[in-house]
Amino acid sequence: MLKYQRIAEDIEHYIVHNRLKQGDKLPVLEELRRKYEVSKSTITKALELLEMKGIIYQVRGSGIFVRRHKRKGYINLDENQGFRSGLDEFQLTSEVLKLEVMNPSEEVMTNLSISAEEEVYYVKRLRFIHGQRLCIEESYYKKSVVPFLNEQIVSESIFNYLKEGLKLEIGFSDNFFHIGKLTKTEANLLALRTGDPGMYYESVYHLTNGEAFDYSKLVYNFQEAQFYLQINSLS
Amino acid sequence: MLKYQRIAEDIEHYIVHNRLKQGDKLPVLEELRRKYEVSKSTITKALELLEMKGIIYQVRGSGIFVRRHKRKGYINLDENQGFRSGLDEFQLTSEVLKLEVMNPSEEVMTNLSISAEEEVYYVKRLRFIHGQRLCIEESYYKKSVVPFLNEQIVSESIFNYLKEGLKLEIGFSDNFFHIGKLTKTEANLLALRTGDPGMYYESVYHLTNGEAFDYSKLVYNFQEAQFYLQINSLS
Repeated sequence: MLKYQRIAEDIEHYIVHNRLKQGDKLPVLEELRRKYEVSKSTITKALELLEMKGIIYQVRGSGIFVRRHKRKGYINLDENQGFRSGLDEFQLTSEVLKLEVMNPSEEVMTNLSISAEEEVYYVKRLRFIHGQRLCIEESYYKKSVVPFLNEQIVSESIFNYLKEGLKLEIGFSDNFFHIGKLTKTEANLLALRTGDPGMYYESVYHLTNGEAFDYSKLVYNFQEAQFYLQINSLS
Repeated sequence: MLKYQRIAEDIEHYIVHNRLKQGDKLPVLEELRRKYEVSKSTITKALELLEMKGIIYQVRGSGIFVRRHKRKGYINLDENQGFRSGLDEFQLTSEVLKLEVMNPSEEVMTNLSISAEEEVYYVKRLRFIHGQRLCIEESYYKKSVVPFLNEQIVSESIFNYLKEGLKLEIGFSDNFFHIGKLTKTEANLLALRTGDPGMYYESVYHLTNGEAFDYSKLVYNFQEAQFYLQINSLS
């Protein structure tokens, strides 16, 4: 972790720890510079990172302010991706329904840009939030990138394993979602009724080198799933 | 618009115009620097902006690549916010159901951080995509920030008017969504059945100075709405 990243993390912890609210003012740049004993450009980079993450906003000539319009019980879509830790407020657990190595279907081939011969790990899980059924998750991992998975790994946080165990550098994801009516199978797994609303959420995860390595399909329970998303104007 | 912003826009146009695909390689930094006759730091800033926007990704020691995993017919959530133009591929039209000045409800007061005395413009519209019912939209605009609206303005792109007509600088939005079952009123407006799936999407828009000025509530038609979202790993 670089110096500006450590400083950004420290400022984020300060905000969370002190329960600062939307609009609360942070110390001015010069003060932060002195506190961390670094150059102005390092502080600037740290603040830019926090701004991109949606943790602060900077108003020219006015100061640095906290951005924190969270609603309790809403899942941050960024954090949900395993890109950030922050889901600790939710008790997430998993029941593994299937774990096997297989050849990809057409759909998986397209989304991971692979040929029919390339093997993938297929993981199907039921995910729980505070003990309630949150979603059905089906994931396909390129075996060339994720050479090993077992029951224990997939019953816990797979992304932690990818990052800590395999040292994969996850770069970005493309996400697609729509709403629809649950099939009988889906409804049974979620303990809902056929035809009840469901959110269908697909993600393609890429390494920092651009290689797609994980294609995931989730079906969310309408009674449990609520999401939070920050969008910045980029110009 | 600053020089690096113009260059970023130019590169984005180049990618779109030439229909470059995910993974296509762009000219190296040095080549871009010579082409635009600017300093290395200006090109670097332009590329950082494009990376944040999810238009390219950079791989150290390897090059600059196009990120463009779009699926036809999916609405980009960033663009949907009026932060970016890009919805031209969709024919979006509106039918105005209501336009009036009113005092805010508790819900509006909370989301816009205003008192009961502060007036808001209330706009209710039915939005169509390619002539099909896409969503019911209810928006509340602080009158102190948006002093004037009329039928013609709200029947077109309100955000264009805010940006071009009122010169508002829109900074960021906080978004909350969940799925549920349509009420009778909602179903009637969307030409669906009571109990059909709906996506309930709320946004609070802020100016660059952090002031919340627009609170919007949308109910999406499950037969028409499908979304696309890019997420970057920020560390």
